[in-house]
Amino acid sequence: MCNACLIEDVKRSMLSRRALFTGAAATTAAAVTAGLTTARPALAQSAGRVVDLTHAYDSDFPTFDGNPGILYEPAVKFEDSGYQLWKLTIWEHTGTHIDAPLHFAADGRSVAELPPESLVCPLCVIDLKAKAAEDANAMVEPEDIEAWISANGEIPAGACVAMNSGWADKVATPAFRTNAEGTFAFPGFSKAATDLLADAGAACIGVDTMSLDPGDSADFAVHYSWLPSGRYGIEGLAGLDGVPAKGATIFVGAPKHKLGTGGPARVMAVV
Amino acid sequence: MCNACLIEDVKRSMLSRRALFTGAAATTAAAVTAGLTTARPALAQSAGRVVDLTHAYDSDFPTFDGNPGILYEPAVKFEDSGYQLWKLTIWEHTGTHIDAPLHFAADGRSVAELPPESLVCPLCVIDLKAKAAEDANAMVEPEDIEAWISANGEIPAGACVAMNSGWADKVATPAFRTNAEGTFAFPGFSKAATDLLADAGAACIGVDTMSLDPGDSADFAVHYSWLPSGRYGIEGLAGLDGVPAKGATIFVGAPKHKLGTGGPARVMAVV
Repeated sequence: MCNACLIEDVKRSMLSRRALFTGAAATTAAAVTAGLTTARPALAQSAGRVVDLTHAYDSDFPTFDGNPGILYEPAVKFEDSGYQLWKLTIWEHTGTHIDAPLHFAADGRSVAELPPESLVCPLCVIDLKAKAAEDANAMVEPEDIEAWISANGEIPAGACVAMNSGWADKVATPAFRTNAEGTFAFPGFSKAATDLLADAGAACIGVDTMSLDPGDSADFAVHYSWLPSGRYGIEGLAGLDGVPAKGATIFVGAPKHKLGTGGPARVMAVV
Repeated sequence: MCNACLIEDVKRSMLSRRALFTGAAATTAAAVTAGLTTARPALAQSAGRVVDLTHAYDSDFPTFDGNPGILYEPAVKFEDSGYQLWKLTIWEHTGTHIDAPLHFAADGRSVAELPPESLVCPLCVIDLKAKAAEDANAMVEPEDIEAWISANGEIPAGACVAMNSGWADKVATPAFRTNAEGTFAFPGFSKAATDLLADAGAACIGVDTMSLDPGDSADFAVHYSWLPSGRYGIEGLAGLDGVPAKGATIFVGAPKHKLGTGGPARVMAVV
């Protein structure tokens, strides 16, 4: 089957399977609209310092299933042709990357369908480092959001709310994925916290770990509620120590391949 | 050979071939520094309207060699696992994408090595639509740059200078690549124009066609001078009719895979 045919077939198949969707949150047009189209980038206060929130990655970058997330094969070699390029094999959810609604909802938005205005957002950073140092599976809980609000004011509409657990510093070590027993162990969001953020009108959540849910999650409750609600997530953020808790603008360079469930992204902040 | 070993081997091989490089422009540390590290995003004047400059793409997107630039294969299926993702095969130079120096210089910067501050730039748009309507292989020439300067003032340091030839509207037709005779035919930059832009301290050039050089180029003079100078390009821009000639800030979401010669990017402007 040709590739375009395959894609169209899969799309039709996905749409026809709407009835099978068993996610925890209903996809309502109102929720999608509230979360993704009211963002207004707060650029007017910017001094113009660019902070890269993206890991450089290759086949060694840690992935959920432990297999390489990208493979390289020379497609054109410099010595043969005077220029060069790679043929890459990429499993979408590797490196610093997007989780689009379609990743966890058969009829969700693809990464190419995210509204552009939802990709330029006020950035709110929740510092979870102290909790995560005590418990590798620590979660951002509603009280952490409330503490942020007490210190910084309301969550702006259309915000990206990112967890800084300190995990980005472990990216080159096995401790990024697992504890000493080899069991998944890393911080994430609790569903109660992301429900609160959805009510507040946030467009996006971000983590400096491999998953929106913590490592010991049995049910991927955040993936199965936040994404099917039409919102997106960013996994594997870097550099969050370089941005303030409040006041930066995040640019989310989400890939734009049609029907993508997500994919490696370039994410930067302007402070 | 393992993938990481392959990459390291290629990198060593590239570095050892520096003497073989026959590009037209010398790579000097001064030029690289001038072009890529003086950019200061002009965000303070922004009103916050986001304009997407990226085509959504799939296997049908036109490519230089005429083969699909991306292939999709299901890696995890929703009906089997309750979530889904693709295994993608991507030839780096497809869709709206970056040309990094490494694409045309064996020892050039990879896309992962572009300084983040060079990816948030003042955007200057040269309207070439009238010339391109007369001649499919029209070029941005020094007089077009000079006319832009007369109307808008100096090219800002670290700018991205983009050609709007009207070609983005042809992307779904054969005329995006070739004329009625089946010969490559599309507008691009002249080397004289990009030499002028390098002197002016621009960080980046962008085109709404498949190539920085025009379709009838015999020598890829712009690729072989601009890229080896340490600067980068963007090919396949969309949406340039939606941004002003001057005053927007472009956010270049370049991919960040190590040793990349470029790759599909998310490019947006804030006006």
